[in-house]
Amino acid sequence: MKLTGASLIAGERGRPNGAEFRAVNPEKGELLEPAFISGIIEDVEQAAQSARDASVEFGSIAGRERARFLRTIADGLDAAAGDLVARAALETALPRPRLQGEVKRASNQFRIFAEVLDEGSWVAARIDTALPKRKPQPRPDLRSMLRPIGPVAVFGASNFPIAFSVAGGDTASALAAGNPVIVKAHPAHPGTSEIAGRVICESARTCGLPAGVFSLLFDSGIEIGKALVQHSLICAVGFTGSHTAGRILMNLAAGRPRPIPCFAEMSSTNPVFILPSALAEQREKLAANLFGSVTLGGGQFCTKPGLIFLPHHPQAAGFVSDLRRLTSDSSGFTLLTSGIAANYRDSVQRRSRLDPLNTSIEAAGESACFVTAALFETQVEEFLINEELGHELFGPSSLVIHYRQRKAMIQAAESLEGSLTAAVFGWEEELAQYQDLVRILERKAGRVIFNGIPTGVEVSHAMVHGGPYPATSDSRFTSVGSQAILRFARPICYQGWPENNLPEELRNANPLKIMRVLNGRMTRDPLEA
Amino acid sequence: MKLTGASLIAGERGRPNGAEFRAVNPEKGELLEPAFISGIIEDVEQAAQSARDASVEFGSIAGRERARFLRTIADGLDAAAGDLVARAALETALPRPRLQGEVKRASNQFRIFAEVLDEGSWVAARIDTALPKRKPQPRPDLRSMLRPIGPVAVFGASNFPIAFSVAGGDTASALAAGNPVIVKAHPAHPGTSEIAGRVICESARTCGLPAGVFSLLFDSGIEIGKALVQHSLICAVGFTGSHTAGRILMNLAAGRPRPIPCFAEMSSTNPVFILPSALAEQREKLAANLFGSVTLGGGQFCTKPGLIFLPHHPQAAGFVSDLRRLTSDSSGFTLLTSGIAANYRDSVQRRSRLDPLNTSIEAAGESACFVTAALFETQVEEFLINEELGHELFGPSSLVIHYRQRKAMIQAAESLEGSLTAAVFGWEEELAQYQDLVRILERKAGRVIFNGIPTGVEVSHAMVHGGPYPATSDSRFTSVGSQAILRFARPICYQGWPENNLPEELRNANPLKIMRVLNGRMTRDPLEA
Repeated sequence: MKLTGASLIAGERGRPNGAEFRAVNPEKGELLEPAFISGIIEDVEQAAQSARDASVEFGSIAGRERARFLRTIADGLDAAAGDLVARAALETALPRPRLQGEVKRASNQFRIFAEVLDEGSWVAARIDTALPKRKPQPRPDLRSMLRPIGPVAVFGASNFPIAFSVAGGDTASALAAGNPVIVKAHPAHPGTSEIAGRVICESARTCGLPAGVFSLLFDSGIEIGKALVQHSLICAVGFTGSHTAGRILMNLAAGRPRPIPCFAEMSSTNPVFILPSALAEQREKLAANLFGSVTLGGGQFCTKPGLIFLPHHPQAAGFVSDLRRLTSDSSGFTLLTSGIAANYRDSVQRRSRLDPLNTSIEAAGESACFVTAALFETQVEEFLINEELGHELFGPSSLVIHYRQRKAMIQAAESLEGSLTAAVFGWEEELAQYQDLVRILERKAGRVIFNGIPTGVEVSHAMVHGGPYPATSDSRFTSVGSQAILRFARPICYQGWPENNLPEELRNANPLKIMRVLNGRMTRDPLEA
Repeated sequence: MKLTGASLIAGERGRPNGAEFRAVNPEKGELLEPAFISGIIEDVEQAAQSARDASVEFGSIAGRERARFLRTIADGLDAAAGDLVARAALETALPRPRLQGEVKRASNQFRIFAEVLDEGSWVAARIDTALPKRKPQPRPDLRSMLRPIGPVAVFGASNFPIAFSVAGGDTASALAAGNPVIVKAHPAHPGTSEIAGRVICESARTCGLPAGVFSLLFDSGIEIGKALVQHSLICAVGFTGSHTAGRILMNLAAGRPRPIPCFAEMSSTNPVFILPSALAEQREKLAANLFGSVTLGGGQFCTKPGLIFLPHHPQAAGFVSDLRRLTSDSSGFTLLTSGIAANYRDSVQRRSRLDPLNTSIEAAGESACFVTAALFETQVEEFLINEELGHELFGPSSLVIHYRQRKAMIQAAESLEGSLTAAVFGWEEELAQYQDLVRILERKAGRVIFNGIPTGVEVSHAMVHGGPYPATSDSRFTSVGSQAILRFARPICYQGWPENNLPEELRNANPLKIMRVLNGRMTRDPLEA
């Protein structure tokens, strides 16, 4: 696929008026062709108007037609896998097998939402039948279901250039719910973004949908993204990225004349608690698994285990020396951008100064993006007084927190910020003695894991990839898995509405055979007239 | 019940340190005994700490135990009905039958949530079973369900002193979801608030629950409310009131170091669209019904129809003169507070100046709270250029908007702010020709009504009392009906978690027999081991 470098606005090329920028190969530091053209404010306006115009038709078509659109995109992504992987490898330096996995993950996400739409019950249809003779007031016929929220702005993430970017879970779930999507492409992988964006545009055409259902805007700066979040026709925002950028978008969304929901997935330390039993029994395996999780994708996973709580134990020193050996033996990592690498180096340096016990390895830079792994140690008492140690350090590093007193560990757990995950390693029998810890972790994380590493976020029905702030802006939702669709829908109640004018989901006969709440009872039965 | 005038903090009387204030009888303008004592910041601190301490136990008990608590409150409210109605009548001047209805509505709300908890499926339990042999990666066992979000701050509304106040839907749904609640009492009905608060405290004691599960704070000013929303241990806010106050709370919630969801129900014009068929057939009945809805409770319902779109039609003038006659024949209304009455008079005066066609009736004040109904008319062309006319005017008034061109009416519909409701009156056959209008109204309102008045918000499963801003802060939720519980819960995923440590809802045997999503299929079946 030959890249054009132009934004895609409702199926058309964007204006050639904006500033040019180029992607950078992180391995070699070279600029990549072609030049990409930043959008201008008029592009935002046009994309938003087209999205709004498209939303009436797109929001009203049957779920099975939207499912067809999603499957067409999935097939298109699979067909473009070669192009996507080749370009993403250049733009991100991520290994090809990983990128091939991302394409599969992305197309799988569209397919799982297509299944959800085909099954149909996700709309939470509810019917309370009329009680015309009730005293003192009759009850009218009331029927509610989830409907699309309106055009959604999506910001691609840098760390998953395919599966959390243009054709990622935010786009898939927003389209699944019936909303047009406008993506602000991440400037670190504009070519990958263009390929994915063209797949979606092409799919809309194939399915005969209005072109405004999807737009893709480029910008090397922040103006286009800001204008998008502030545009009056945008009804929700999906974002994955840094805490700083996410909070800016949250504030913009909340500060609008008409505030809108902003789903930002931002910053997570993913604490790990090792119980004495785990240390006694599986010390080496545990160290290897954790180190693998810490450094997966160069430590650029949002679920990287950044804090490891370690009890006083005969095997504790051995466990740390296992981790140390793995750290010093590792050959280093090319991070996604020179900015991420510079931040990582700064943070490692700052943490090294803060913590006299640190065992970080000096980075011998091969390119601006090259870094080495770092391991830090501290005592729980220090952790409790040094807030900085509880913040995410993005990149291949982790912090071991030693404790002697269980009480101090519990206090530290209580002091943690919100996280996407929290993991406990130990025997099942021992877990019963740590119910206080478990109760805390349930409050701190969206996913609590027993004897498993936090990286590897399954795209499934029960997954929760969310968590209290700053892990996400809104702990009530997940951004991965089929429940992600609930972010972009709102309930509407039809009162006394004529049967023939109701959406299929709410009609007496239940033609889609979905699960509904009928006078308080869950059933797929039709409503007897 | 003898009133004490003291805040209730985790079952104990608040400190007697704050400023005193008294309720006012709106009919006579007299101060009512006893004096109520405003809370101080230390009270907020103590209430929040107690709520947090209580949240671990309260959030972990079985749903059926929380249901027992809710039913105990419901019974307590019914038992206190005499006291509640007598005091509320003094504090609000609302008629006793209406207040008796409110007590029933309030206790009914607690009972409907108790039913939801007994049935149990509301937690949206999902199980994806492990696939240990899957390539390239095995899938772990993943199980998710909704859990409590944490302590909730609730602000009582002035216009429903019982059913939307201390023991209103926000408190009922937050407690139902497993969260401790701290209510900031509305200063216009502190005595009614104290009675309801004591019923809830007493019920917690009866059920052996930690006292921190409920607190009630008085304040004649705004400091306590502000401190509550900003307190780090508060996890969500429920509010019903004015757009101005609601937006202040929204901004406070969004501006915290750790932002929290704020569910504010604020301002709604509840537009009504009369199709020619309705005017031809049922002109007089329609005018009477609408006027009744406009003036119900002195026009102080959030669902009051504030905008009436009227086509050019032989019956249009007659319809307006029906409304005029009803307006001038009505004997006036005592509003809830002198502040609301003053605002109403100002707004009526301003609108009278703006609109030369106005037919408002001069208010001959008997007390500071006494006002008369007002009816305004304008042309759609004027409505389109005068933004002010599209804002809520709280009190017994409505605005008739005449149109000749259907296109202008559609344009006006498109220009509307978000509303709780939108209603269409007409023949079923005619509705088919107004699908463009219906599509717009679906985007503008939480509830769309056919041939029915918007006042009268059923407490049921399918009700949606919500809508786009400024009707509410978050159109994805309802504050009335059983779905209101979803505001105060968040999903948690348990990965690889030992069966015995899982909540009952997620265990293999499905002991509660709830509906679950098992590998993508909705079922009440147990999971075969």
